[in-house]
Amino acid sequence: MIETPYLLFLGDAPDALAAKVAQGIKDWRPQNAVGQLSLPGCKADMKLTEMTIEQALDAGARTLVIGVANRGGTIAPSWMAVLEKALIAGLDLASGLHNLLKNEPTLVALAKEHGRTLHDVRIPSVTYPIASGEPRRGMRLLAVGTDCSVGKMYTTIAMDAEAKARGMKSSFRATGQTGILITGNGVPLDAVIADFMAGSIEWLTPDNDPDHWDMIEGQGSLFHPSYSGVTLALIHGGAPDALVLCHEPTRAHMRGLPGYQLPTLEAVRDTALTMARVVNPGCEVIGISINTQHLGEEEALAYMAEVEERMGLPTVDPFRQGAGRLVDALPAPKG
Amino acid sequence: MIETPYLLFLGDAPDALAAKVAQGIKDWRPQNAVGQLSLPGCKADMKLTEMTIEQALDAGARTLVIGVANRGGTIAPSWMAVLEKALIAGLDLASGLHNLLKNEPTLVALAKEHGRTLHDVRIPSVTYPIASGEPRRGMRLLAVGTDCSVGKMYTTIAMDAEAKARGMKSSFRATGQTGILITGNGVPLDAVIADFMAGSIEWLTPDNDPDHWDMIEGQGSLFHPSYSGVTLALIHGGAPDALVLCHEPTRAHMRGLPGYQLPTLEAVRDTALTMARVVNPGCEVIGISINTQHLGEEEALAYMAEVEERMGLPTVDPFRQGAGRLVDALPAPKG
Repeated sequence: MIETPYLLFLGDAPDALAAKVAQGIKDWRPQNAVGQLSLPGCKADMKLTEMTIEQALDAGARTLVIGVANRGGTIAPSWMAVLEKALIAGLDLASGLHNLLKNEPTLVALAKEHGRTLHDVRIPSVTYPIASGEPRRGMRLLAVGTDCSVGKMYTTIAMDAEAKARGMKSSFRATGQTGILITGNGVPLDAVIADFMAGSIEWLTPDNDPDHWDMIEGQGSLFHPSYSGVTLALIHGGAPDALVLCHEPTRAHMRGLPGYQLPTLEAVRDTALTMARVVNPGCEVIGISINTQHLGEEEALAYMAEVEERMGLPTVDPFRQGAGRLVDALPAPKG
Repeated sequence: MIETPYLLFLGDAPDALAAKVAQGIKDWRPQNAVGQLSLPGCKADMKLTEMTIEQALDAGARTLVIGVANRGGTIAPSWMAVLEKALIAGLDLASGLHNLLKNEPTLVALAKEHGRTLHDVRIPSVTYPIASGEPRRGMRLLAVGTDCSVGKMYTTIAMDAEAKARGMKSSFRATGQTGILITGNGVPLDAVIADFMAGSIEWLTPDNDPDHWDMIEGQGSLFHPSYSGVTLALIHGGAPDALVLCHEPTRAHMRGLPGYQLPTLEAVRDTALTMARVVNPGCEVIGISINTQHLGEEEALAYMAEVEERMGLPTVDPFRQGAGRLVDALPAPKG
């Protein structure tokens, strides 16, 4: 649907986390990114060649992807000149922001004038059902986190890649804009109407072969007051057989909420299991995924060893170590 | 906003629960309902005078309120003749259904032709913020339930009426279409976009006098797979100081989900408190509200006595006994 390859627009990203859309594309579809374009003050870097729009076109780019998000999901005024220039020069635009490209009259007019396309992957394109709660065939894994942006997408997309490499049947199921931009489909869950959240996840993870795994991208956290309802809808709509707990150990407080400490892994395990077993009594936590990007190697390994001992579960950083031990820990398909 | 009085349209309601919009108006604003209009096969009865549209107009009705909901919130084809006739005869229409009056071309055309208004109270009319999780002044109570449709709105509207009768500062905060139709304002939470659910409830229950109570209408249940995310957003957005647990003891299974048993009151208490204390560490369960409409008087009293003993909390049916003991149990205002 979105024409490749991309020029990844990093804007004036205040930190690396803000550019997780670009990072996800760089990590999982590097062949689709010809380069990056940053504005002054940008604190994110994909280690791709920095390019002007003209250079990106010369390198074959077809679409400028907004690879950065700011709180609230708005299109920053400082970005507009670049977006306008991209359309005029001959690139489509793709965005996962709350505020839509198609609601910017200047962009709509330029796209029309130059025959370009505006892709807003945040808008649901499907009428989702209300969740039925009915059991489905096939196996499902869901990532749940102590916070937002702790590596849930990374963990499930890495597990999917590892499972496929082993010849297992597996599908990564994207529930956020980055995942959708990477895979080309999914549910933009945080933009779904409240009553249809769980139903959208049932729709995303339908009946499948008994030995097929849906690796479902998590969102938010049961303990994050802004987004917890989205997380619970994922748990009940996904009806997971297996959970993987995701955590970032250096986070000083919940993302965006200075007054809130992160919950313990034990608290997330207990509450997530209680909720998951409402729809899937056999659900188990099968492992822990730690995002150790802010720790040195030795410190990271020591921390993971401590967590593994304390929780009694395989504990890895899939970025450092791969997702092999998490895939090893998946249960056998149901009878 | 909506012109009164109303003619309450009951349609072909399959049971009394399906007509809870009409019942709420009848119970809490009886002066606003001149009569009811049922179709053949209707199983709900408000004990109001059955009227034709012409009789309702003669009795002063200004608006036909759709007082019935079917699963999925659609406008049944069998209702259309009545709705069309109402517009032609001179009534406005008001609806809290998912499917909107304004999306029905015939109704839109007739309303325009006859100068009538279509009120869809299900559509949010406000751009809600993302929840900040910041503490607010004033006191808040939230009803949480073992299931949908167990008396959460009734409990909080009855507590609000009781508190006001005692001269306390109190506001009923509607989060569903019935409450909005009764009070004229509120948040249609199940129609809010996922990311803004908790923020909409912060918006609904802003800073207030230290001794003011928001009596917040609950929605769904943490244990109802179709709607649990909505419930958790209410808990985190409402940041309640006090919870009241709501239950209907004769329910054979979760509403709409034959495969699901209701959770115990203990399970709802423990999970709701764990979640509420994320945003309000002082939160307590202060009482239990039992909907005993399907029990005889003696049976109801025996059941409530057993629950009160087992749970150690005031246990009442506010419909039979009033909400006095629940209001008695409210904690003193914070510092």
